[in-house]
Amino acid sequence: MTMIAKGLEGVLFTESKLTFINGAEGVLTHLGIPIQEWAEKSTFEELSLALLDAELPTAEELARFDAELKANRAIPREVEDLIRNMPKGVNPMQALRTAVSYLGLTDAESEDVTPEARRAISIRLIAQFATIIAAINRVQEGQDIVAPRADLTHAGNYLYMLNGKEPTAEQARLFDIALILHADHGMNASTFTAIATSSTISDMYSCIVSAIGALKGPLHGGANEQVMVMLDEVGSPENAVDYITDKLNRKEKIMGVGHRVYKNFDPRSRVLRDYAAHVAGKEGKSNYYQILETIEKTVVDRIGDRGIYPNVDFYSGTVYADLGIKKEYFTPIFALARISGWCASVIEYSKNNRLLRPDAYYIGQKNARYVDLKDRK
Amino acid sequence: MTMIAKGLEGVLFTESKLTFINGAEGVLTHLGIPIQEWAEKSTFEELSLALLDAELPTAEELARFDAELKANRAIPREVEDLIRNMPKGVNPMQALRTAVSYLGLTDAESEDVTPEARRAISIRLIAQFATIIAAINRVQEGQDIVAPRADLTHAGNYLYMLNGKEPTAEQARLFDIALILHADHGMNASTFTAIATSSTISDMYSCIVSAIGALKGPLHGGANEQVMVMLDEVGSPENAVDYITDKLNRKEKIMGVGHRVYKNFDPRSRVLRDYAAHVAGKEGKSNYYQILETIEKTVVDRIGDRGIYPNVDFYSGTVYADLGIKKEYFTPIFALARISGWCASVIEYSKNNRLLRPDAYYIGQKNARYVDLKDRK
Repeated sequence: MTMIAKGLEGVLFTESKLTFINGAEGVLTHLGIPIQEWAEKSTFEELSLALLDAELPTAEELARFDAELKANRAIPREVEDLIRNMPKGVNPMQALRTAVSYLGLTDAESEDVTPEARRAISIRLIAQFATIIAAINRVQEGQDIVAPRADLTHAGNYLYMLNGKEPTAEQARLFDIALILHADHGMNASTFTAIATSSTISDMYSCIVSAIGALKGPLHGGANEQVMVMLDEVGSPENAVDYITDKLNRKEKIMGVGHRVYKNFDPRSRVLRDYAAHVAGKEGKSNYYQILETIEKTVVDRIGDRGIYPNVDFYSGTVYADLGIKKEYFTPIFALARISGWCASVIEYSKNNRLLRPDAYYIGQKNARYVDLKDRK
Repeated sequence: MTMIAKGLEGVLFTESKLTFINGAEGVLTHLGIPIQEWAEKSTFEELSLALLDAELPTAEELARFDAELKANRAIPREVEDLIRNMPKGVNPMQALRTAVSYLGLTDAESEDVTPEARRAISIRLIAQFATIIAAINRVQEGQDIVAPRADLTHAGNYLYMLNGKEPTAEQARLFDIALILHADHGMNASTFTAIATSSTISDMYSCIVSAIGALKGPLHGGANEQVMVMLDEVGSPENAVDYITDKLNRKEKIMGVGHRVYKNFDPRSRVLRDYAAHVAGKEGKSNYYQILETIEKTVVDRIGDRGIYPNVDFYSGTVYADLGIKKEYFTPIFALARISGWCASVIEYSKNNRLLRPDAYYIGQKNARYVDLKDRK
């Protein structure tokens, strides 16, 4: 019997020291440290460096990395011009894919595939992703590009470039946590696509451009945007029970609920829920938050026993919305975080590279002959 | 024991009706028809359509497809401007990746992922790849862009746009055959990367941009360029035996020799060898051809019994060089052919889509705790 590993589910194709996931127990660790601790005690900068080097940095290493990120925030004038000249109304992920691809043309080191060069390019990419995404967002909304500042954290500077005003410390930290929660997640489809590209020993920009393309698909990066669409459809907390019950009865998919890996709970969703609750507690419960609470309760009561719980996308959208991020930019924000996991995974795989070349099971015609055009029907 | 399928070698992840390869017997078929028959009797246009639709077209269908290709050869002015403004000396595959990504921004249908839209976009991409690659080549050499003509074949028009003069019928047909031989090759790394991207239900441009990035790597698309580097190193036919013997004795890799799949002979290399021999017979043997002959004989004598024979890259470079194509553009020319296989494979996979999400085997730390920065060494 021929075994076809559809979706490559459960197929191990390499080793990794970066991320461990135990879906059944709701465990996610980076370098063995639970995601809850990263969220509580660390920063996006520190997690990014830890992933790139596959070890916890010293205070000195982290300070140097942070300085390098800050020094590399500005993007070349040509890339700014490219972003300004893009047609209005384009998909932001197509815009990001194009801008990052062009960025590669301006990087004199882009063809260098040594581990040192890959690491140096990764630092620039992590820094410049923020500037590029904020610039695309502003230009597409008819606003001027805001230049980065070097006195803010990575998360704080993004919100500053996006909104044109400095965020509060609490907003910057909340966004920092959201980035931490999305920085890496093992062999998800976009990371895997980056690795597939790098497996031919292609350059770093090609790997990341591939990953952007994969993340763009609604089965991967688009879920939290769909949660917001759902919340707008529900409209008010009073409608939530009926809306969800109706969906469940018709066996329709509920966005932000269930995960291919986590069959018990998604540890990232708990962290985000706690922060969302904290914000709700201080500022009064928003409509969105009350709708989410009601949906979660309804879903867990009805189908929680089948291992279907809210995932990280369930809460992230409302957090982003509170920070001034429009739902069309949720997937680029996902990329803003995941760039660290992509780069780290490519660097790790490159050290033990093997060309990826699986097979398809052939089910077509055999022993056919070419038929002359005039003899075909 | 944990099984790790390194490189996913031998792992079947989907079904396909397009291409069958039996490496041990040197068999390559598309829709069950041997590659030799496609090369002898068909055209790149016909094979492209047959792959897209997974069946041999009627004469009428082929005529319509050919007319659509011709009607879509021109590229938007913005993409021409982008190509003109790219820095000089960029890697042509980075340039192609960027231009195709930008092309997506100009296509109003780009976000449509229905089979019909994917097919329509594929036709435009097949047509416009030729125009984009020729434009990049000319601009990078300081020449004006040559607009496409609608009265030439796909292959003939490419050579016309590249060289600024109409090729002979024999040159156009030889290039047509080279495109046929490279149009598809099952689940190679670039096709697989296109599929990985499409598995999130991403758009066609993202899939193709990913594939370009994967093909760019020297383990995939760069081999025939390396063959030409080798031929230039050898210099003259008299040096060939010593050069190769020396390499074999030092167990160094010989470019264009051996193939991960074909362990007997590569059927495509035979077709190309025959054509190269035919050209050599008419025009007198070139230095290159004589060097190749000598290398092939030496290699087959020494290591042919280990299943190591010249592959398609061994002869394609000299054929391209004869047609006025510089070796830096051999990989873009590979893309010019493989775009058909990429598009066809994405369309086929999309009809039975499954998100690709394999796993890595975790070999990192377990149960670690976050250590405060000041306490780290």
